[in-house]
Amino acid sequence: MNKIEHLGIAVKDLKTSNILFEKLLGAPHYKIEDVLSEGVKTSFFKVGPNKIELLEATNEDSPIAKFLEKKGEGIHHIAFEVDDIVLEMERLKGEGFTILNEVPKKGADNKLVAFVHPKTSNGVLVELCQEIRE
Amino acid sequence: MNKIEHLGIAVKDLKTSNILFEKLLGAPHYKIEDVLSEGVKTSFFKVGPNKIELLEATNEDSPIAKFLEKKGEGIHHIAFEVDDIVLEMERLKGEGFTILNEVPKKGADNKLVAFVHPKTSNGVLVELCQEIRE
Repeated sequence: MNKIEHLGIAVKDLKTSNILFEKLLGAPHYKIEDVLSEGVKTSFFKVGPNKIELLEATNEDSPIAKFLEKKGEGIHHIAFEVDDIVLEMERLKGEGFTILNEVPKKGADNKLVAFVHPKTSNGVLVELCQEIRE
Repeated sequence: MNKIEHLGIAVKDLKTSNILFEKLLGAPHYKIEDVLSEGVKTSFFKVGPNKIELLEATNEDSPIAKFLEKKGEGIHHIAFEVDDIVLEMERLKGEGFTILNEVPKKGADNKLVAFVHPKTSNGVLVELCQEIRE
């Protein structure tokens, strides 16, 4: 794994939190992106080599809506950048981790993504992400 | 803020989790450190420019013991590297954030640290950390 690509934070209201995180990080978000398949609207902030991704639910069935209901606002997942997501998924399966999707799926920010079940990783929802190379 | 310095993860048993995170990250922890003042034992893993810090409580009054009791194992805080922690604390206070300590304190890994109250930062416990320059 190359680095922490981003940290995902669940928020109730993206507009309010964009202002808050601009104050916290000292710089504004650089993009907003809807991920229809996940029922989320996201915004991204750069912090040196890393990013912060804020996530707002866009429908009631969104994983973020369920997270907010259960736990409230806060850190939702950590994403690691990998060079070859398929290889990394295989390696982790071999080590006993449960991968939540059979094949990588298209995530926000031009990435292929896969998730590790938090039950097999100390309560931490881990995302693997690989830049999509055209 | 320069980068995500580390992500802090609360665990019940450091030995077990060190093995788990070695499998997850593909490399072993490079140090173990007791922080007596916080009642925690920590281990550190490198992921490129970032680190993962596992935190185990060493007494019942430890903030990590309380976190585990309330929320279970999982992501506890995010730490950002800053050049001048006093300046950054002042900037954040001016922006309306509550800083949990009046002056920076000595944390793990040769750092001066200060924490932002999660109530003022969307439920996220934010740590500022600055390398101690001898």
